[in-house]
Amino acid sequence: MSEQIFSYQQLADFTKSVFLKIGCNTEHADTATKALLSADLRGIDSHGVARLSGYVRLWEATRVNATPDIKIIHETPSTAVVDGDSGLGLVVAPFAMQIAIEKAKQVGTGWVSVQNSNHFGIAAHHAMMALENDMIGIAMTNASPLVAPTFSIDKMLGTNPICVAAPAGIEPAFVADLATTTAANGKLEILQRKNFQTPTGWVQDKDGNASNDPHALKTGGALLPLGGDRDHGSHKGYALGAVVDIFSALLSGANYAPWVPPFPAYVPMPAQQPGKGIGHFLGAMRIDAFRPADDFKKSMDHWIQGFRNAKTVAGEKKVLVPGDPEREFEKERIKEGIPLLKQVVDDLQSLSEKFQIASL
Amino acid sequence: MSEQIFSYQQLADFTKSVFLKIGCNTEHADTATKALLSADLRGIDSHGVARLSGYVRLWEATRVNATPDIKIIHETPSTAVVDGDSGLGLVVAPFAMQIAIEKAKQVGTGWVSVQNSNHFGIAAHHAMMALENDMIGIAMTNASPLVAPTFSIDKMLGTNPICVAAPAGIEPAFVADLATTTAANGKLEILQRKNFQTPTGWVQDKDGNASNDPHALKTGGALLPLGGDRDHGSHKGYALGAVVDIFSALLSGANYAPWVPPFPAYVPMPAQQPGKGIGHFLGAMRIDAFRPADDFKKSMDHWIQGFRNAKTVAGEKKVLVPGDPEREFEKERIKEGIPLLKQVVDDLQSLSEKFQIASL
Repeated sequence: MSEQIFSYQQLADFTKSVFLKIGCNTEHADTATKALLSADLRGIDSHGVARLSGYVRLWEATRVNATPDIKIIHETPSTAVVDGDSGLGLVVAPFAMQIAIEKAKQVGTGWVSVQNSNHFGIAAHHAMMALENDMIGIAMTNASPLVAPTFSIDKMLGTNPICVAAPAGIEPAFVADLATTTAANGKLEILQRKNFQTPTGWVQDKDGNASNDPHALKTGGALLPLGGDRDHGSHKGYALGAVVDIFSALLSGANYAPWVPPFPAYVPMPAQQPGKGIGHFLGAMRIDAFRPADDFKKSMDHWIQGFRNAKTVAGEKKVLVPGDPEREFEKERIKEGIPLLKQVVDDLQSLSEKFQIASL
Repeated sequence: MSEQIFSYQQLADFTKSVFLKIGCNTEHADTATKALLSADLRGIDSHGVARLSGYVRLWEATRVNATPDIKIIHETPSTAVVDGDSGLGLVVAPFAMQIAIEKAKQVGTGWVSVQNSNHFGIAAHHAMMALENDMIGIAMTNASPLVAPTFSIDKMLGTNPICVAAPAGIEPAFVADLATTTAANGKLEILQRKNFQTPTGWVQDKDGNASNDPHALKTGGALLPLGGDRDHGSHKGYALGAVVDIFSALLSGANYAPWVPPFPAYVPMPAQQPGKGIGHFLGAMRIDAFRPADDFKKSMDHWIQGFRNAKTVAGEKKVLVPGDPEREFEKERIKEGIPLLKQVVDDLQSLSEKFQIASL
């Protein structure tokens, strides 16, 4: 597939112009741009600028409010519930994470559940806000139902990712960011484009049989929870996805389970929604609320080096630490630029025409 | 295999006598007995009374202190670090969970990282202490290294379980309690006894090749993180096990990664241990620190009923909610008694002789 390479700055300027055109104020446009493009930098191409036109379509369908009044609707010293006022999750989640950080400064930890939001990009971007404050950051979100729980053919949960970011000393931070499914939807999309079979355990067909068809979701099939099937622990992936749903939506009053709003604007909203918008859950734990930060970071360095130096299986170069692959992407893409598929470039071109802004 | 059935009370009286004989005070003996036997009630036979002689051997090896001075060594309004003074994890973890609950009463949430502890039984017992307080409970622990991270042949992590318990209204509570491996070690032990093959993805051999040998761990092999291999998401199971290690040990100053003390007393302690004992992490979140508890519980009922009523794959009776199987066991075993394998009964018989207490 043909690709074109752009610098981060080119994509950032373009993306910000689009957010300004739909009515975001400058601060929100900046925040949303950084959140969205952090995915492209980190190699999570499915969640970056490739989704920009999707966010615009949600705005056109009045499912995204470009001028939200984001506010705390309930709080205690260590908790808050935030109403995102249908804003971009790319703006609402950093707002909520900042509250979690402020609360952690005051009482050791801060935990914020969010209702009435939209897709927030990659979880890592929000969790990593904690790092520069010598805190552990946690971010999760629910998402449109694509995943069948163990033994079911109904799609009841989203890919519901969890991210945990913890600072280290001389080593780079530990950043685990994972969908609670065997494979993220973005990985499935790559196989769809190439028309390659999926490994067993990624998807099932409409009757709940194991399938290797990357297009299974389009014919009534479902993504599978991490584990794939009962024998391989899918009840654990299902339970983890459920925890994300409970923390993000049941604690906040957002929609949950099959009632979570779909990302594609052309998919009708589920009937009888029990809550408001999409839900997120953000947390921050101050390291020195437990232990001097320098001691912790030295231990993290020792931990990380232990894993990096672990013996590999023959044929594998090294044991990775969570966050390593994404950091390699970021290093390379800041220097060499960000490659976009032709269909993504075309999609951005149509946005430049729609909003009469300079094309990329 | 021949089994003998005992009432809960018979096992509780016997277990408490043993804990008293090793020197626990009455309160600790009670606490430890309840924690240990909660596993037998819930059908997690690998973690219950079958381990009693193992705890005794740790005490004989002076790795368990029966009269610990368990104390808070650092705290903020929402956090604490507890030093377990080498006590039984069965006693230390409920102590720490109670602190988390008290802090949640004060500031909305409480988070306690524990150093210098020992094996704490099943995570669910501790997490579920939160339920009667209308709180969400969280419990995790690190454990002896049996698990190889993705791409490695070295055993670097324990089965590092995570439990999240959330109250519902008319429905029973949601209780997800899962090892971050494809299969818990207890399940492997069942296949070992029967000499049955394991499904692919549970274990690898000493060279890191996929294996179906339930005895693979005895010949240099390892348990595999949830997912099994890279294609099926093992890097996610590895990341989750790593998060448990970081929260339980890096935040508290306990041992981590391959340095965690082994449960079998005959296995020598690792050299150059970086911390103290085993680590746990306990958390409590007051529901009404986010949302009125009754609203949350009504939503939980709706959520749970949604999953129970989801369409099943042909041949499956129903979609389970995390906690369902264990609750069924508990209901049955309270009524019908707890079956123990002959080898477990013999093991308890030898304890009755050792301590001159009435045999079961």
